Amino acid sequence: MFSWVDGQPASALNLQNRGLAYGDGLFETIAVRGGRPSLLSLHLERLALGCQRLGLEADIALVESELHRYASLLGEGVAKLILTRGDSQRGYAPAAGVPARRILQGSPLPAYPQTNAETGIRLFPCQTRLAQQPLLAGLKHLNRLEQVLARAEWQDSACAEGLMRDTDGRLIEGVYSNLFLVRDGVLLTADLSRCGVAGVMRAALLQQAPLLGINVQVRDLVLEDLQQADEVFVCNSVYGIWPVREFGALDWPAGPLTLKLQAVARTLLDT
Amino acid sequence: MFSWVDGQPASALNLQNRGLAYGDGLFETIAVRGGRPSLLSLHLERLALGCQRLGLEADIALVESELHRYASLLGEGVAKLILTRGDSQRGYAPAAGVPARRILQGSPLPAYPQTNAETGIRLFPCQTRLAQQPLLAGLKHLNRLEQVLARAEWQDSACAEGLMRDTDGRLIEGVYSNLFLVRDGVLLTADLSRCGVAGVMRAALLQQAPLLGINVQVRDLVLEDLQQADEVFVCNSVYGIWPVREFGALDWPAGPLTLKLQAVARTLLDT
Repeated sequence: MFSWVDGQPASALNLQNRGLAYGDGLFETIAVRGGRPSLLSLHLERLALGCQRLGLEADIALVESELHRYASLLGEGVAKLILTRGDSQRGYAPAAGVPARRILQGSPLPAYPQTNAETGIRLFPCQTRLAQQPLLAGLKHLNRLEQVLARAEWQDSACAEGLMRDTDGRLIEGVYSNLFLVRDGVLLTADLSRCGVAGVMRAALLQQAPLLGINVQVRDLVLEDLQQADEVFVCNSVYGIWPVREFGALDWPAGPLTLKLQAVARTLLDT
Repeated sequence: MFSWVDGQPASALNLQNRGLAYGDGLFETIAVRGGRPSLLSLHLERLALGCQRLGLEADIALVESELHRYASLLGEGVAKLILTRGDSQRGYAPAAGVPARRILQGSPLPAYPQTNAETGIRLFPCQTRLAQQPLLAGLKHLNRLEQVLARAEWQDSACAEGLMRDTDGRLIEGVYSNLFLVRDGVLLTADLSRCGVAGVMRAALLQQAPLLGINVQVRDLVLEDLQQADEVFVCNSVYGIWPVREFGALDWPAGPLTLKLQAVARTLLDT
């Protein structure tokens, strides 16, 4: 697959890059269908928020035009965009006025088992807890050791995703996805003001649900909420929605609200 | 300055490197004097512990021999070693059996004002709090956005270091250093089992102090401990020890125990 650095073909990066040194940057993982980046405006919105919170100087309009150009060449697949605070000498102090470095990499659309979307997945109960850092919560930044540790906890391919809790035991998200519960027709998802990644598909569903007459609550979730849920699903901006069929001793059907939103997610990704 | 990747001269890194993608790795910042890496055994000890906790497969003996070779060419300066979990395709899952990639970079010894070591420094009160993640606490890993945010809080060059607290308000460390207090002749430093970087100079001082008849306590520290301290200092493995002369409305002399340990630190760095 081809990759670009600052709009030019490249396969390597300067060793001084602050993305390598400190994880000083952000990323977006964007589905590309028919030569177009899916859910682009939401990806760019999150990116702009991340730049603002990290003090990263990025030209979002330039990023957008590069993403369009890259996607048209990629055709079908996944585009990964990394923004880093450029290169630096030794030391954490960020230099002012350095434009963010733009890295684009591509990969084929992953070939997930069809059953993930149809009958649902099993969730692994990760022991790795998410630390609570409001300054970074919600962002898709490059400091992802917690996800690496969590994903290393299981090898059983029967678990397509793992459930991550925070250090106080609240349910937060999947390693690669956001978590939604349905109870009495209401859609519930975790408040991500202390930790977690505020996914773009999550944002899209939070926008769409009220338009479909579905009530939504964003709040703290605990294990009891999972026990009382009628339906459970995970979502991300590559595969859309997968029903959760099993977690420990709990199980759920691929319920009606999940399947309805899954169709919505599919449409959002395809257009 | 010259740099190496896996023992070979290189100035660039594959874009697929997991250090860039996730901050999936560790680093060490090592003073080099007279062609020799200072405090090498303590650096390698921390590195080995980090590899064990992250499940990174590194040949520490090979790292050691490379560091000796690199230091002999560098002569005087600072060697930065980065270990990453090699390259990867998309996804957090670490592949088994991939040897850690070794990156070595050099820089000149920093030219700090002489007064930092002699009369001491002023500490900036950082608002950025350290999240509590016992799985990563103590390690010098590549997820350093908290330090980047903290260091971005002040531009005033009169503050040579900033004091970082955890999300519960405990005193933890400097952005680039560890913190010690002296009270009634006892040396105090923060417990780093929830967050913070367990510095190599801190480890060396914790070893040396008892040999000098100095009592040491590693425990939780709060602002009140700072108010009651007779002496305060910060330390790292490049400059050794700097007395802290001022923090907000508090001030301290460069006290006798600080100066005694400063001489010890100097000897440790020089031999």
